[in-house]
Amino acid sequence: MPGSLDADFARELDARDPLARFRDEFIVDPDTLYLDGNSLGRLPRRSIERIRQAVEHEWGRQLIRAWGDGWFDAPRRIGAKIAALVGAGDDEVIVADSTSVNLFKLIVAALRARPGRSKIVTDDLNFPSDIYVLRGALELAGDYGLEIVRSPDGIGIPGEALADAIDDRTALVTLSHTAFKSGYVHDLAGITALAHRAGALVLWDLSHSVGAMPIALGEADVDLAVGCTYKYANGGPGAPAFLYVRRDLQGALTNPIPGWFGQRAAFDFGLDYEPRHGIARFLTGTPPVLSLAAIEPGIDLLLEAGIAPLREKSVRQTEYLIALWEALLQPLGFTLNSPRDTGRRGSHVSLGHPDGWRIDQALIAEMRVLPDFRHPDNIRFGVAPLYTSFADIREAVVRLARVVTERRFEKYPRERSEVT
Amino acid sequence: MPGSLDADFARELDARDPLARFRDEFIVDPDTLYLDGNSLGRLPRRSIERIRQAVEHEWGRQLIRAWGDGWFDAPRRIGAKIAALVGAGDDEVIVADSTSVNLFKLIVAALRARPGRSKIVTDDLNFPSDIYVLRGALELAGDYGLEIVRSPDGIGIPGEALADAIDDRTALVTLSHTAFKSGYVHDLAGITALAHRAGALVLWDLSHSVGAMPIALGEADVDLAVGCTYKYANGGPGAPAFLYVRRDLQGALTNPIPGWFGQRAAFDFGLDYEPRHGIARFLTGTPPVLSLAAIEPGIDLLLEAGIAPLREKSVRQTEYLIALWEALLQPLGFTLNSPRDTGRRGSHVSLGHPDGWRIDQALIAEMRVLPDFRHPDNIRFGVAPLYTSFADIREAVVRLARVVTERRFEKYPRERSEVT
Repeated sequence: MPGSLDADFARELDARDPLARFRDEFIVDPDTLYLDGNSLGRLPRRSIERIRQAVEHEWGRQLIRAWGDGWFDAPRRIGAKIAALVGAGDDEVIVADSTSVNLFKLIVAALRARPGRSKIVTDDLNFPSDIYVLRGALELAGDYGLEIVRSPDGIGIPGEALADAIDDRTALVTLSHTAFKSGYVHDLAGITALAHRAGALVLWDLSHSVGAMPIALGEADVDLAVGCTYKYANGGPGAPAFLYVRRDLQGALTNPIPGWFGQRAAFDFGLDYEPRHGIARFLTGTPPVLSLAAIEPGIDLLLEAGIAPLREKSVRQTEYLIALWEALLQPLGFTLNSPRDTGRRGSHVSLGHPDGWRIDQALIAEMRVLPDFRHPDNIRFGVAPLYTSFADIREAVVRLARVVTERRFEKYPRERSEVT
Repeated sequence: MPGSLDADFARELDARDPLARFRDEFIVDPDTLYLDGNSLGRLPRRSIERIRQAVEHEWGRQLIRAWGDGWFDAPRRIGAKIAALVGAGDDEVIVADSTSVNLFKLIVAALRARPGRSKIVTDDLNFPSDIYVLRGALELAGDYGLEIVRSPDGIGIPGEALADAIDDRTALVTLSHTAFKSGYVHDLAGITALAHRAGALVLWDLSHSVGAMPIALGEADVDLAVGCTYKYANGGPGAPAFLYVRRDLQGALTNPIPGWFGQRAAFDFGLDYEPRHGIARFLTGTPPVLSLAAIEPGIDLLLEAGIAPLREKSVRQTEYLIALWEALLQPLGFTLNSPRDTGRRGSHVSLGHPDGWRIDQALIAEMRVLPDFRHPDNIRFGVAPLYTSFADIREAVVRLARVVTERRFEKYPRERSEVT
C-alpha cells in the first residue's frame, strides 16, 4: 500500500486537523465507524443536558410558564442561528414542521405569487419526496405542468438543460441544492439568476447542504428555501425543519396552512386570520418543543467551527475518500457515482457496485461500518466534518474492500424487503 | 364554611379516590397548584426515562439503526394505543404532524370525496386555529361557502341550529368535540348521524377530549378525526398530533401533502408517488422522534387507569368545582361560563369575571395557582383526573376568592400585551 494510503498517513491528517477537537463534543461509540451523518447526525454531548433541562425543568416544573420563557420564541430564535449558516438575515428563517410540509407551504405560496404562468421546473436528482409534495401542491394549486429535467448519468445536470427548461411560462424552479444520491451540487447563484431573468421564483431544498456547504441565500437573492436540521446540523432524529423567505417577499406571500402560531394576537382567539408580521406568518401549529430544543446545541457547534473551515475539511476528506476508492475499490468493481469535480460535490460520496445492497448489509453486520444505501446500488458515505476523522474514512474503505475480497456479502439477500 | 366545602372534606374525597395512586406517576411541584393540564399535561415520571433512552441509547448509540428498531413504526404503534382511547380500530389512528396540519390534510381529502357539494359547516365554539386552517383549505380546494353556526351564549350550541345548517349541499361538518373555551361537549354520535343522513362527512377535533372523555369513534361511525397529545394525554409540549380515518375510507381518500413517510417502498426512491396501504398514507415527512417517543408513557398511563374511571372522577371533580364556585365565587361576581349540565361538559370549567385577566395574573404571581386564561374574561380550570386532586381544586378556589376579597388583582394591567 503506498504511503498516502496507510493508517499512519490518516492519523497524521487527523493530527493536523484544526477542527479535530469538535469530535469530543459528540457521543462516539469507538466500536462503530459512522459515515451516515448526512442521514442522521451524531448526538452532541451538550444536547443531552439541553434536553434534560427542557424535560425536567421546563416541562416538569415550569409547565405552561415555559411558553413565555423561551418556548414560544424558539422557532424564531433558533431560526436566526440557522440563518447565519445559510447566509440569510436573522429575520428570514424560522423553524417549523417537517421539510415536506414547509415545501408544500412555500410551493403553494410561490405559485400564488406568479399567476398566469403554467409550469414548474425541477430535476430527477431532487429528493423524490420533494417531487411527491410538488405534485400534491400542483393538484391543488391549479393547472400547471411539471417539467422534470433528467440527468444523463444520474450524477449531475448539465447547466444548459436547466437553462433550456426555464422560460417565461415558468412560475417556480425548485431543486435540491445538494443531490441526496450523488452529492451533486447545483450552482445556486447561477440558477437563481436564471430563474429571475425568466421572471420565475426559486425554492431551494438545502437539506443535504446545511452545516457542510457554504450557502449565500442573501447574496444570491434567493426567494425561498427549506431544509432539515437532523443531518449535518445534528439536531436529532426527525428534528423540526426550517424555512426561509426573503424579507421583501414575506409580506407578499400567504401561508396556505394558516394556524394559530402564525396568527397576530393569537390569544385574542378571534375567528378571522390575521397573519403575524414577517417570517412568523409561515408558522402553523404548535411546535414539538422537545425536538425543537434539541436542535440548538448542534447549530451552536457549527457556528463555533465556522462553515468555511468545515467546507475546507469536507473537501479534503471527500478527496481522500476518492483517492482511496481509486486505489482500493475501483479494482474491485466499485464505480464513483458522485461528481469528481470538487466544486460540484457536496459532503457525501456514493460508490456503486452491482452487489451494492448485499455488500452494504455485510458492511454493517460484519464490519461495524455504517454508511447509507441508496437504490439501486449506491453505498453512500457521508463526511460530517465536525466529527468524521480521516482514520474513519480510511478504515471504512479498507473494511469495504475486505467485504468484497473475502466474499462476505454472498450470504445476504439481493433484494431489500419492502416497508408496508 | 359548610362541611362539604372545608379542607377535610376535600382530603376525604382524595382518600376515597380509586385513581389517587396515579398522581405519584407525575412530577408534582408541591408549591404550585396546577389546573392547566388541559393546555399542557404534567410530566410523567416514566417519560423522563423514556426520553433519556431515546436520546442517549437510540440517537446516541444506535443512530440510524434505530429507524428499523422502533422509530419507523412508532407513528403506527403509538397510534394504535391512542385508538384504544377513542374507540377506534388499531389500524385507524396514526401519529403525525401538528393538529393543524392534520386538519388541513383531512379537510382537503374530505372535500375531494364529496364533489358537487358547496358548503362546510362548523361553529364559533371551534378552536379559532381550526377555522383558520379551514379557510386556508377552502381557498385551495374550490368554491365552498363556510357556515359558522353561532352560539347564542358563548357556552353551547342548540342542536336545532346545527340541524338547520346541515343539508344536502354540505360536504363536511367539522367541530371540536369539547369546546376549548366553555368546555361544551357536542353530541358526537348524534351530529355524526345528522351529517351522514345529509350525505356529508364529519371531522371531529378531539384535542380537548382525548384522555378525559369517553369517545366512541367506531360505534358512532365517525369518518375523520384529529387531536393533540399534549393536553390530557401528557405527551409533552407540542407533542405530535394524531389523525383518524375510518378503515373503509382510507383507500378512497388521498393525502394532499404526499411525502416519503406515506410512500410505498419509499426506499426505492421512485419519482412517482404510490401511497402506503391504510392509515400510513396520511403520513408526510419525517416525524420528530424525540417528541414522538415522549408521548407513549402518558398514553400508557391513561390506558392503565381506563377512560370510564377517569371520566367518572372528572365529573365528580368538575361538579365539586362548580359547587365551590356557587358557594364562594358567585357572590364575588364570577359567572359560570361552562355548561351546568354534566352530560354536556368536558373536563374543564371556565369562570368569567369582569376583571378576569387581572385576577388571572394575580392568581399566578401571588397565589401560585396556574389556571389558563381565555379571552375576554375566562379563567379556565382544567381537571386532569390522572393527577388533579380534590384538595387542589378546593385550594385553588379558596385562593381565587382571596385574590378578589383582598383586592390583590388591582395592581395588574387590564390588557394582555400582544405577541408580535
